[in-house]
Amino acid sequence: MTLQHIKVIGFDADDTLWVNEPYFRDAEEKFCDLLEGYLPRHTINRELFAIEIANLPVYGYGIKAFMLSMVEAALKITGNKMPVDIISKILEIGKTQLDQPVEVLDGVEDVLKSLTNKYRLVVVTKGDLLDQEKKLTKSGLTKYFHHIEIVSEKRPEDYQKILRHLDVKADEFLMIGNSLKSDVLPILDIGGYGIHIPFHTTWEHEKVDVIIDDPKFRQAEHIIEILQYL
Amino acid sequence: MTLQHIKVIGFDADDTLWVNEPYFRDAEEKFCDLLEGYLPRHTINRELFAIEIANLPVYGYGIKAFMLSMVEAALKITGNKMPVDIISKILEIGKTQLDQPVEVLDGVEDVLKSLTNKYRLVVVTKGDLLDQEKKLTKSGLTKYFHHIEIVSEKRPEDYQKILRHLDVKADEFLMIGNSLKSDVLPILDIGGYGIHIPFHTTWEHEKVDVIIDDPKFRQAEHIIEILQYL
Repeated sequence: MTLQHIKVIGFDADDTLWVNEPYFRDAEEKFCDLLEGYLPRHTINRELFAIEIANLPVYGYGIKAFMLSMVEAALKITGNKMPVDIISKILEIGKTQLDQPVEVLDGVEDVLKSLTNKYRLVVVTKGDLLDQEKKLTKSGLTKYFHHIEIVSEKRPEDYQKILRHLDVKADEFLMIGNSLKSDVLPILDIGGYGIHIPFHTTWEHEKVDVIIDDPKFRQAEHIIEILQYL
Repeated sequence: MTLQHIKVIGFDADDTLWVNEPYFRDAEEKFCDLLEGYLPRHTINRELFAIEIANLPVYGYGIKAFMLSMVEAALKITGNKMPVDIISKILEIGKTQLDQPVEVLDGVEDVLKSLTNKYRLVVVTKGDLLDQEKKLTKSGLTKYFHHIEIVSEKRPEDYQKILRHLDVKADEFLMIGNSLKSDVLPILDIGGYGIHIPFHTTWEHEKVDVIIDDPKFRQAEHIIEILQYL
């Protein structure tokens, strides 16, 4: 795969540039702690997940959506009969998560430093703009990126919109991320390049089971490996 | 004011293209209805506003942030002693608001139709991306706009970022909106053009008391008036 003609590289943010999913797992554990008197933990988790998925079209992604779904799940799990201070504790869980430290993944800064003068680098994320801007600032990586592209979903048509917006052809765009479903498949679908770098924890909703046979696709174990193509 | 050299026109969304603030006022009224057994209505409103402002740096703007602040305000107002079904009702208020119809303001479509082939038109909003995308779709105005610019704040530096992003000079950019504080003052500050079109309802946080004496500024009563400059 030669990529010398690439003009713009899109990086997914959460779990590609920095640690994110483990903070959601922690928050879910704390949520289960609050409610384990009502239902077994795995049932609590299942109820929460079902409510999150049902709310996706209304709330979208991000921590605020997650907080509202936790509140709704707590009401459902306890049949509207819980002590009201559980709600305060849910708000605390969410606010702690919004204030979480940013732990940049190993190798990320070296890669960005080496690419920033050769390509236009952008962050492409479904998260919440304010939240992602804050994380980018805290990460110290702002200087490497041209800007952040926020999308409400990462479907092929959303990437088409980004390409129009960036004024590049699909063939000149490479997307790098930890989610096959969101960062790789849709971009291959429209004729762009994709490199998948798995993260050890993946949200249930992002899991897919596919084998990709596409000359524009590469799998990497570690972000540093992408430099061999660029 | 001659504006023949303008290349990009930014339109604020809420209360510039469509009705928004009255839905927040309605939601606040319903919130007061739920809690009027605990405190006088104006005190409830004041508590809610204080919590919204305190949460702005954490949650940003938009309906999800407003929902989370309503939940927190209800806990505070009732001293954590309210019946838990008030929380369900708050979630309902928010979900209803997220599903609100889009009422395009009078004259907006005529103006956009007349400008869309002469200038690049963009929506510039602090709202939530998913929510604003949905409203744009429901409004039927999507075809007139190049894209939506979502910003976490509308400070001069945020507009600078947009200009870099759009690749235009401040002098080639005109911003149109109902908030002097967010849509006009910061853009004049960086050397761009601004037209203010007041809406009958303004959120407390957006109110400023200034007289603007700037050759790049115009006040309009109705959006249709902007065509005389373009």
